[in-house]
Amino acid sequence: MINSSIDFNFEKYRLILIYFLRQQMQVYDIIYQKRNGEELASEEISYMIHGYTQGEIPDYQMSAFLMAVWYQKLTSKERAQLTMEMLKSGKQIDLSSIPSIKIDKHSTGGVGDGTSLIISPIVAAAGGIVPMMSGRGLGHTGGTLDKLESIPGFNVKLDEKTAIKNLQEIGAAMMGQTDDIVPADKKMYALRDVTATIDSIDLISASIMSKKIAEGMDALVLDVKTGKGAFMQKKENSIALAKSMVEIGSDLNKDMFAYITDMNQPLGKTVGNSLEMIQAIEILKGKGPEDIVEIVLLLSARMLVMCKKAENMEKGRAIAQKMIDSYKALEKLKQIIEIQNGDARVIDDYSLFPQASLKEDYFSPKHGYICDMDALKIGLSAVVLGAGRENMESQIDYGTGYIMHKKLGDKVEKNEPILTIHANDKEKLEKARQMLKHAIQVNDKAVDLPLLVYGYVTKDGFKDDTIPRP
Amino acid sequence: MINSSIDFNFEKYRLILIYFLRQQMQVYDIIYQKRNGEELASEEISYMIHGYTQGEIPDYQMSAFLMAVWYQKLTSKERAQLTMEMLKSGKQIDLSSIPSIKIDKHSTGGVGDGTSLIISPIVAAAGGIVPMMSGRGLGHTGGTLDKLESIPGFNVKLDEKTAIKNLQEIGAAMMGQTDDIVPADKKMYALRDVTATIDSIDLISASIMSKKIAEGMDALVLDVKTGKGAFMQKKENSIALAKSMVEIGSDLNKDMFAYITDMNQPLGKTVGNSLEMIQAIEILKGKGPEDIVEIVLLLSARMLVMCKKAENMEKGRAIAQKMIDSYKALEKLKQIIEIQNGDARVIDDYSLFPQASLKEDYFSPKHGYICDMDALKIGLSAVVLGAGRENMESQIDYGTGYIMHKKLGDKVEKNEPILTIHANDKEKLEKARQMLKHAIQVNDKAVDLPLLVYGYVTKDGFKDDTIPRP
Repeated sequence: MINSSIDFNFEKYRLILIYFLRQQMQVYDIIYQKRNGEELASEEISYMIHGYTQGEIPDYQMSAFLMAVWYQKLTSKERAQLTMEMLKSGKQIDLSSIPSIKIDKHSTGGVGDGTSLIISPIVAAAGGIVPMMSGRGLGHTGGTLDKLESIPGFNVKLDEKTAIKNLQEIGAAMMGQTDDIVPADKKMYALRDVTATIDSIDLISASIMSKKIAEGMDALVLDVKTGKGAFMQKKENSIALAKSMVEIGSDLNKDMFAYITDMNQPLGKTVGNSLEMIQAIEILKGKGPEDIVEIVLLLSARMLVMCKKAENMEKGRAIAQKMIDSYKALEKLKQIIEIQNGDARVIDDYSLFPQASLKEDYFSPKHGYICDMDALKIGLSAVVLGAGRENMESQIDYGTGYIMHKKLGDKVEKNEPILTIHANDKEKLEKARQMLKHAIQVNDKAVDLPLLVYGYVTKDGFKDDTIPRP
Repeated sequence: MINSSIDFNFEKYRLILIYFLRQQMQVYDIIYQKRNGEELASEEISYMIHGYTQGEIPDYQMSAFLMAVWYQKLTSKERAQLTMEMLKSGKQIDLSSIPSIKIDKHSTGGVGDGTSLIISPIVAAAGGIVPMMSGRGLGHTGGTLDKLESIPGFNVKLDEKTAIKNLQEIGAAMMGQTDDIVPADKKMYALRDVTATIDSIDLISASIMSKKIAEGMDALVLDVKTGKGAFMQKKENSIALAKSMVEIGSDLNKDMFAYITDMNQPLGKTVGNSLEMIQAIEILKGKGPEDIVEIVLLLSARMLVMCKKAENMEKGRAIAQKMIDSYKALEKLKQIIEIQNGDARVIDDYSLFPQASLKEDYFSPKHGYICDMDALKIGLSAVVLGAGRENMESQIDYGTGYIMHKKLGDKVEKNEPILTIHANDKEKLEKARQMLKHAIQVNDKAVDLPLLVYGYVTKDGFKDDTIPRP
């Protein structure tokens, strides 16, 4: 893209002078080139990321650069280079002492999306090695670490040695990112967050992939959400994000697979940390909402295929189902909780989880069908309850959230409960209730349900392989 | 412009949350809106500029904002608001105690463009009131203040009281911008200079016009340069810049007139501070290169018309010529120098100016016609000699520069001097000589000369009223 009203030559010649007199001024030149839509050389990206992480390049130049990237986008080559440089800004976990294929799963974030809590035990129970480095919830999206921490005592701060030991012993480690992993991303993300440069496919891809590669995985299944509560609301954008991440990983010799799944309404029937953790345990006990179970089986099967524990998807799915039916996955979850200092008694006694003091139903205003259950708005209202974070300093109120009795397409009677609000503060509860009025719509006529899965992306591109909502 | 691969709704909804919880986060929202090409409200621009000047908004948010402005441009309304807010960041000189129309002239910058030094005395001699707040040279362009400071003792740091007193006594004040004039511009310019956001018509217009309005003028003649050594190299861009500035000024009830003049080759026959000052004195003595004299008479006539000292351009031109012929303008220059503590003996004794110790000719490599005399490259080479500034900390070497013997279109013999280099350092002289080889081209055939003036811009738009090179 060229800003046609400006003469670029002027600035080009200005650079001649600068070079002539100083023999440098590289940062300016890099911002300038990217601004004008030119492809940057590898050394230039390296210089930028290294300099910024080291504190040699100031925030104000990086934010101008990131805004230029937002507009001009990155080429595949630039994106791969950016990822590598971000990766190199910190240490990488060395899992080479574990000979098996290390498989991980990453979701781009959603509401009620507690699948990691279920998938990790299933795949590890089937013999997979699952080093899972997760994040915390931010904005309307939940985070695996917060959900795990609703278990009393559960420690997500594993050092490298402990993580390797746990992987060797039980095949799973569920941990947070340590400070020395991709420090460039931490610094850049904080800057993007206040300069309106978060929503760039290039920057998101590099951010996610640099962290995933740093954790030492060999293969990665991505769950790229699409719809109202997803980072990308349009399917084509979710596909573009998936393609970008698959490409980066493939270039770095990682086995990559991405599903495009629906996030128009929350997944499963719970939103909130204790509540989603309880639902995860229920699913591992063979009980649970069909939609989330379907996603769990699909992703688990794919992971089992990729780490060579299953020959094909059909067998992978059968193995995953068997891990649930035999309670082996539940046992694996128990091992994970115990090895990470959690109170594993929660599996049999949900009252050990933080509880909400107030439980009030949200009723349908009329007879009809649920035609909207906006995942974003529900997620935002849950933040108000305390189930999510407004910013990284916010405290989580683990017991708060929602238990849904109805989902998209369900028939409801007037004054029938659609969901139950779990809160610890009457005022917050009322605020959330007001927000729910905008999130949930009941109509006279039933609407078409969105699909559950829209297809998948591999390095060969997107395949339109849909799965309907069960 | 919309970045089509991104879903804007996501960020919009994020803002709902932010507003809901914090009741603010305005800066983010402002950057975000501008990034997406939305028109900002007056209060938003006000908030941004005020907050930045006060140090409440950090550089990194302002630089992202400025980059977004670079891409998305500003509407007329936004541009006027930006100018007003920048103006309001500091104090305005109050010239209301002087009843006459205060007239100023501003050039967008060029090489050899010492017209202010000549025009100011002419117009003041004819009874005009000329409060002229000028800048310093930066990059390849010269600055009026530097040229004036080549006069021993000349003080450009006038406070408001002294400026008013001088205007009342002699009708002219040639001064630098004080620190309390448009501090927002100083801060923003410094940031733009290192984040590749200088070359934006919107930001340039607001920067120039806020300063011009702050100096208290009622009417302004703009000399918007176009061509190789100008800020804008293409005529249409120079016209756009002129229109933008004329519009801003007119909106604020200033009488505005802009000429579009050529800056493909340096104006006049000197480049450098002492040298241009000497040429200015020569012109006021009735001697001087035809091209710069033509520009001087044109701009002076226009200023005289605008401040009601001449009924029309023809009469204005005659008055300006008379001010030269009668030595009244030279006498006015003497008054200006004396009242600003300069050594007025320089008018009769050029040896009192800082001199260069080395004077070497630059010879034509062959017989033919000068077909290129690139003003930008010549300006850059003059910076190397010390005649200009690489950055605001650079020291000026006043005696250095060029005296040109030939100009575009002139016939030259092989080894005939094209210009004389004035330097104080042998090494710098040789560097400049190397650069001149790229700046000056001699061909077998004569080329068409560029026009001297391409037309003018008023609030009614551009008029294609050309004046050929004399």
